Amino acid sequence: MNSFGRIFRVSIFGESHGESVGIVIDGCPAGLSLTVEDFLSDLERRKGGIQKGTTPRQEEDLPIFKSGIFNNRTTGAPITIFFENKNTRSSDYEKQRAIPRPGHADFVANAKAGGFEDYRGSGHFSGRLTVALVAAGVIAKKLLNPLHIVSKILEIGGETDLDKGLQKAIDEKDSIGGIVECRVIGLPVGLGEPFFDSVESQLAHIVFAIPAVRGIEFGTGFAAVKMFGSMHNDAIENKEGKTTTNHAGGIVGGLTNGNELVFRIAIKPTSSTAKEQTTLNWETGKVESVSVKGRHDLCIALRVPVILEAVTAIVLADLLLLEQKIKRIL
Amino acid sequence: MNSFGRIFRVSIFGESHGESVGIVIDGCPAGLSLTVEDFLSDLERRKGGIQKGTTPRQEEDLPIFKSGIFNNRTTGAPITIFFENKNTRSSDYEKQRAIPRPGHADFVANAKAGGFEDYRGSGHFSGRLTVALVAAGVIAKKLLNPLHIVSKILEIGGETDLDKGLQKAIDEKDSIGGIVECRVIGLPVGLGEPFFDSVESQLAHIVFAIPAVRGIEFGTGFAAVKMFGSMHNDAIENKEGKTTTNHAGGIVGGLTNGNELVFRIAIKPTSSTAKEQTTLNWETGKVESVSVKGRHDLCIALRVPVILEAVTAIVLADLLLLEQKIKRIL
Amino acid sequence: MNSFGRIFRVSIFGESHGESVGIVIDGCPAGLSLTVEDFLSDLERRKGGIQKGTTPRQEEDLPIFKSGIFNNRTTGAPITIFFENKNTRSSDYEKQRAIPRPGHADFVANAKAGGFEDYRGSGHFSGRLTVALVAAGVIAKKLLNPLHIVSKILEIGGETDLDKGLQKAIDEKDSIGGIVECRVIGLPVGLGEPFFDSVESQLAHIVFAIPAVRGIEFGTGFAAVKMFGSMHNDAIENKEGKTTTNHAGGIVGGLTNGNELVFRIAIKPTSSTAKEQTTLNWETGKVESVSVKGRHDLCIALRVPVILEAVTAIVLADLLLLEQKIKRIL
Amino acid sequence: MNSFGRIFRVSIFGESHGESVGIVIDGCPAGLSLTVEDFLSDLERRKGGIQKGTTPRQEEDLPIFKSGIFNNRTTGAPITIFFENKNTRSSDYEKQRAIPRPGHADFVANAKAGGFEDYRGSGHFSGRLTVALVAAGVIAKKLLNPLHIVSKILEIGGETDLDKGLQKAIDEKDSIGGIVECRVIGLPVGLGEPFFDSVESQLAHIVFAIPAVRGIEFGTGFAAVKMFGSMHNDAIENKEGKTTTNHAGGIVGGLTNGNELVFRIAIKPTSSTAKEQTTLNWETGKVESVSVKGRHDLCIALRVPVILEAVTAIVLADLLLLEQKIKRIL
Repeated sequence: MNSFGRIFRVSIFGESHGESVGIVIDGCPAGLSLTVEDFLSDLERRKGGIQKGTTPRQEEDLPIFKSGIFNNRTTGAPITIFFENKNTRSSDYEKQRAIPRPGHADFVANAKAGGFEDYRGSGHFSGRLTVALVAAGVIAKKLLNPLHIVSKILEIGGETDLDKGLQKAIDEKDSIGGIVECRVIGLPVGLGEPFFDSVESQLAHIVFAIPAVRGIEFGTGFAAVKMFGSMHNDAIENKEGKTTTNHAGGIVGGLTNGNELVFRIAIKPTSSTAKEQTTLNWETGKVESVSVKGRHDLCIALRVPVILEAVTAIVLADLLLLEQKIKRIL
Repeated sequence: MNSFGRIFRVSIFGESHGESVGIVIDGCPAGLSLTVEDFLSDLERRKGGIQKGTTPRQEEDLPIFKSGIFNNRTTGAPITIFFENKNTRSSDYEKQRAIPRPGHADFVANAKAGGFEDYRGSGHFSGRLTVALVAAGVIAKKLLNPLHIVSKILEIGGETDLDKGLQKAIDEKDSIGGIVECRVIGLPVGLGEPFFDSVESQLAHIVFAIPAVRGIEFGTGFAAVKMFGSMHNDAIENKEGKTTTNHAGGIVGGLTNGNELVFRIAIKPTSSTAKEQTTLNWETGKVESVSVKGRHDLCIALRVPVILEAVTAIVLADLLLLEQKIKRIL
Repeated sequence: MNSFGRIFRVSIFGESHGESVGIVIDGCPAGLSLTVEDFLSDLERRKGGIQKGTTPRQEEDLPIFKSGIFNNRTTGAPITIFFENKNTRSSDYEKQRAIPRPGHADFVANAKAGGFEDYRGSGHFSGRLTVALVAAGVIAKKLLNPLHIVSKILEIGGETDLDKGLQKAIDEKDSIGGIVECRVIGLPVGLGEPFFDSVESQLAHIVFAIPAVRGIEFGTGFAAVKMFGSMHNDAIENKEGKTTTNHAGGIVGGLTNGNELVFRIAIKPTSSTAKEQTTLNWETGKVESVSVKGRHDLCIALRVPVILEAVTAIVLADLLLLEQKIKRIL
Repeated sequence: MNSFGRIFRVSIFGESHGESVGIVIDGCPAGLSLTVEDFLSDLERRKGGIQKGTTPRQEEDLPIFKSGIFNNRTTGAPITIFFENKNTRSSDYEKQRAIPRPGHADFVANAKAGGFEDYRGSGHFSGRLTVALVAAGVIAKKLLNPLHIVSKILEIGGETDLDKGLQKAIDEKDSIGGIVECRVIGLPVGLGEPFFDSVESQLAHIVFAIPAVRGIEFGTGFAAVKMFGSMHNDAIENKEGKTTTNHAGGIVGGLTNGNELVFRIAIKPTSSTAKEQTTLNWETGKVESVSVKGRHDLCIALRVPVILEAVTAIVLADLLLLEQKIKRIL
């Protein structure tokens, strides 16, 4: 299913080189003010072509409201937002149909659809669809206001000096990965559920919907395995649940504990790389050498922070609605 | 919600020191042979008290079939399985109601339920409920047969020599964490969906339902961020999708790619530790010193492999049913 | 799926002649007082054997709480309730395995499960499971308090004099059907959604989960087709939405309109009848004559009102939680 | 939620006088051929303005494919279809904002959205959205091929001579209701589930998503309440489950039984009527007289058959996919 959420529920659709990509957002409270301007800043942050290391493909990326908004307010009916695909160069891809690009979904998409997939620019599997997630995130963030979600890159290619990490890739004419962190201050105690609807479960679920994510860790995360319990446990200080340390990253027993929510995700190097690689040509049945042409990101992690904020906001809006911390009419 | 899955759907319930814990499994095909004996081996693997480093609390842990099984076969109706809690010593916990144990769900559970939570031995938040997950896993594994899921501990306390890791904790009279890996050979190409129902999304969702999990990574995982794209990409070798390397851990574009599924999870040190710690006493409003008594695991990671196999099997059974690779009548 | 509801979510399980039937109720707010006594009155109303025209099979029908209740209050964790099947006489059924009873689910259940169904007393298809619905209804009604749901029989065998209707069947040594109505006063305006989650959609969905229901109509229902629009439309009188008439039965555009909710359901005659009938013997492949023995209701409609109230309460509790009219902690 | 279905899942959106209405269809198998021409016949059947008794408002109603279709085939990705609203005359409605039309959703929609609703031509509550259901139905029907769903009007205004029924309304300058039937031949035995996912539950759920539906009955329906069991029960004749009669309408125990599926729905008279009526003016707080202007259907039932077929096809496609009777790749 291309849907996520229980009350605040999003459904995405579209293809990279189709006419458009978009999202339907169901369950958004009525009365939220919403204009195109609300979206511009986050959409701009997601864009390639400006930062060093991002794709020169540029889309105008103006949200087109198709439903659910009236007189610049949400009506409570499903909100549909479109983004047109104007700047497509499908011929780049069509020639190489039978040669699945290494690291890309070409091979699995073909198998899944029995050959009926839209193969142009990864089709429905494209990172292009994250523009729709960012749009939903803008709405979710407005619902969460004044809660603040901040995401940033911690490392590129293992370097905390990000320029240094990028330069490695530029020097190698290759792509590179990175680590992105997300933090949220001000969450109430008790969001989430133990077991299947734990906050970690829900965040991890949607985070792995972002292409290129290979791992997620909360609080101290993987480093916790080397700690003793007495060190890892966060001592509770006051009746609001504030803890002296925050190894838990703000989640205990699957529930928010009133401290800062902290988690990190690992982004693999962009699959597209100018470096020569080998792959199967399924027409000839032979392995051949390819160098992926086209306009690509050197380091896709650079574009992830705003997407990570968006999916986090989507989860939190849903949880806060469920816990009746956001009203149904604003 | 205490439920997970689309076709093969599990719902857990129960409390650590209540009468019982259990699970309802909906959507299991009819005709699967099922006897108590099928469960014994995996239930035994989950038990504490045998291995060094696990809790001396022992439950008999015999599955009691309440519905959905007739003449030793599944009927297609919901399967309900119970485990009685016999070996409970609630008085251990009742005395300390107002003193939330560090690292435990006591504080958040209390806030969530407004004081109505069953606070005995973590109540509904207890790891005791994982016995029910293991039971569902046994059924899922039988559905997956001959597919094989193998999970094992990779590290304890940062040591690949596991005895050495455990000994650290024993020496310190403290608890310790670990890393557990899961591998599955033989999956078809094309399970999962891009975006919200990616295989990673679904596995991560259910994995974080296991108490004490703090992180998950697929394939090369967090180490991928230091790699160049040309190194991380797995070259496709043949028409079945076999790749020369497996940095992707068997998942590309959210879909299985026909290679071995590989992922790892980080388990924090057991929250209960004999070491002295501080926490709030919410009656007095003062921070005080505690040493958590009771019967606990030194290293909860030791009990996780069979649980990890179980939740993995639950996800895969659901995906295979959705893709019509498992029949509705066996 | 054997589940229903978005926030207040019920899952039923069990078989007529298995060990027990039961229900898991997820999403119930914490802090609701709940004792066995709360259930007795509604369970008594559902029982056969007391009223003329109902089955002499009697079960003690005491709810057994297995989870989610602590110190006589709900904890917010899933509530599991069991009812034991003590008074079973399976041998009545086993002899006639190959002879599907007319009007019963025997034939379809066998086909669905490929022969693996529990065929004793309709197995999982039995009306016995409605005892679990009644139990969930008791909890839902307590959540709705002081809202009042009242259901009653309007007709038996086409007679509004119910004794007369029953007597027809007694005279004929046959079974008979009836019409049951449900009314709810005091609902707020605006529950439900247009289209798929209309109040009618949700009520109809769960009402058809009650065995033997063959139709449902809201307000004026089928009689509305003979009316002119100007007669059928209910004139709004005041700002609370009160209407002069109530042809709509309290629902307009899929939403409650603040007037009395009114709907009726048609219950077919009990499938089991002492009258001689014909059916296939699937072993011999021949049609033969049967007279269904066993203990049965002459008019199953007699037992439906409390079940209808229960399922209505389940839907309304869910809708009121979604609209934040019932709190998450009581 | 504006969504329905488990595998074949539809989500509708849009407003009557907004820019467009549309639908997202998730879970459709890949490889289904699909062109605009496939839709024309059913869309034409739904249109007003041709038949006597239908609205003179005419939309071109050409489906615009936005995603999920490539080279005239479904790709397995979500299919998005739009219909533009060109022929809108919103000013008809805007003047009368404070005067909720009797029988319409104006009042409840306003309360639900706290005044933020799109009130133009019923906004999101409009029957205009059924064009999107018809589009999804076209796709579902193609999946069901060669199964045939046929829906027709049985009565208008209580008359089986439909012209006579219509003439009544024309003479009265009022609107009128009707009964619509749906039949499906060729369904396999065993679709559906007992209880919550019974075929009746699912069909009734979606049928009540069609505006103006006030009742539904399966097989003999409400008339069954006057029958004796021995008369109502359908005798099974052969191993395929064929019955001599079909009082059950093809469903027993919530499951299809291999006989013809038969059900009927009651459609109320169109709420809009030229006849003078009274309603509240919520600005003045006084009841006043209104006569609803605009372009409306005299008998909305006339346009329902193709919509009823569509929603039936949507349910059946979902059930057949779940039972693996439709493949995931065609």
